[in-house]
Amino acid sequence: VLNSDLISKKFRDLQDAICSRLEAEGGGRFAEDAWTRPGGGGGRSRITGGSGFIEKGGVNFSEVFGETPAALRQELGSRAETFYATGVSLVLHPVNPHVPIVHMNVRYFETSGDSWWFGGGIDLTPHYVRPADAASFHKILKYTCDRFDLKFYPEFKSWADDYFFIPHRNETRGVGGIFFDRLNQKSGYSRQELFDFAYAVGEALIPCYLPLVRAHRDEPYSEEQREWQLLRRGRYVEFNLVHDRGTRFGLETRGRTESILMSLPPLARWEYDDRPQAGSAEERTLQYLKKGIDWTTKG
Amino acid sequence: VLNSDLISKKFRDLQDAICSRLEAEGGGRFAEDAWTRPGGGGGRSRITGGSGFIEKGGVNFSEVFGETPAALRQELGSRAETFYATGVSLVLHPVNPHVPIVHMNVRYFETSGDSWWFGGGIDLTPHYVRPADAASFHKILKYTCDRFDLKFYPEFKSWADDYFFIPHRNETRGVGGIFFDRLNQKSGYSRQELFDFAYAVGEALIPCYLPLVRAHRDEPYSEEQREWQLLRRGRYVEFNLVHDRGTRFGLETRGRTESILMSLPPLARWEYDDRPQAGSAEERTLQYLKKGIDWTTKG
Repeated sequence: VLNSDLISKKFRDLQDAICSRLEAEGGGRFAEDAWTRPGGGGGRSRITGGSGFIEKGGVNFSEVFGETPAALRQELGSRAETFYATGVSLVLHPVNPHVPIVHMNVRYFETSGDSWWFGGGIDLTPHYVRPADAASFHKILKYTCDRFDLKFYPEFKSWADDYFFIPHRNETRGVGGIFFDRLNQKSGYSRQELFDFAYAVGEALIPCYLPLVRAHRDEPYSEEQREWQLLRRGRYVEFNLVHDRGTRFGLETRGRTESILMSLPPLARWEYDDRPQAGSAEERTLQYLKKGIDWTTKG
Repeated sequence: VLNSDLISKKFRDLQDAICSRLEAEGGGRFAEDAWTRPGGGGGRSRITGGSGFIEKGGVNFSEVFGETPAALRQELGSRAETFYATGVSLVLHPVNPHVPIVHMNVRYFETSGDSWWFGGGIDLTPHYVRPADAASFHKILKYTCDRFDLKFYPEFKSWADDYFFIPHRNETRGVGGIFFDRLNQKSGYSRQELFDFAYAVGEALIPCYLPLVRAHRDEPYSEEQREWQLLRRGRYVEFNLVHDRGTRFGLETRGRTESILMSLPPLARWEYDDRPQAGSAEERTLQYLKKGIDWTTKG
């Protein structure tokens, strides 16, 4: 029977599998940092950077539980006395500006009183948007969703458009992907079925992302393109610190700072009013950072 | 009589005076970007960087007014239909890691219904804490406060310790300074007296900061010290985007993004679990990033 122990064990396997694949692909060696949470549980952070196509990246696994902190009760709108959460999250900042930043997260939540749900998502942040790359990325996500329910991709794609959005810049974080939360039995699916779906999203990271790495990791780039990459990473920092619910909630509840902020880039840049030149590749990228684009038709 | 027009004019003069002094000192030329606010008012952002001891810096003046936005009413706990706000804010990120980052802000606020107050502060963020520098900085602030009221320095110094604090790092942003808000007639002082105080805080920027610039701008530094500077700037970004009320409130109410985010550094770095070596100058700096240090006794 699929209980939280088994879900957590499978998420640990997912972390192992992703790290192995990234290492085999030349992502550099992952160093593990295992930690325990004073209130219950712990995790293992795996960090890479500096020796492969990833300039800085992390793949975190965690399994935490115990008394529900007051801030968590408020966030959940629940009076549950105890909680349990397990998941995997990943952010990779590549060396080459032609390779996109990628993020993936899958998580399972349980509270006393028999409430449980899955959440997660995967989204792509190209420094330079290439519609054909965005198309291949979204097609794999659509295929992953369609295997479970034809309603999932349209719903979760649009959810990602809304979630990965930076209002003060009026820009999406990138070309989006899928995002879902609080997926439970009310969806009409069992815990086993929803776990299978969440796990499939986690597994989709490799086929979604590695083709883009292979296509662009050795592409030459100029100093100007590197500077643009650092500016786009600045936007990534803004999204994560100002808007990302997971990051803000983690910091507010005094989660493990190093693991939460693993998502931040190795180096980022801010310039006053950094507008790209008219007609440049950088300006074209900005024009693609909009909600509501059906990327599956762009390739 | 001291009305809001006159306060605003004086704040404009303060911006002019500070920019001239910084330019004369070799801070590079300031470029002006004048802007208007759709709902009423506007400002002038002055930006420098790249040609003097300042790698990136800004001195903003603004005067905004109009219908009170809903978010502002909530923040203020007020039902006032109209508001008026004017102020100057400054952040300088120096080239040399031995020169500290500095921040200064003075502001005047008015709402319909005869409510008004001043706020502001000035604080120092050294990449390497030197107690004698922190002492000279704080002594000038104390002197500035003591001229008005002997209670101001202890109260506003401790307010700065609490405000310029990064809970998720358990670090102060630097060696602090002074911070005050909602200073009105309940303090026992008139609007004219409190304006004189706020203006004196703005004027203190130059004598507080320039001696530290002169002392360290030509000090040699290593690549490792530059890296440490970028990591400390990362903490500055974290404070401003996660905690700073002005920044968060400005972004939420759709203020002018470029002017609000002027405070972000030109380049910042994040490393997983970046702990300095035992006994190093970097570790000594971390030991100084605590609340409650009486810096005036350290020089």
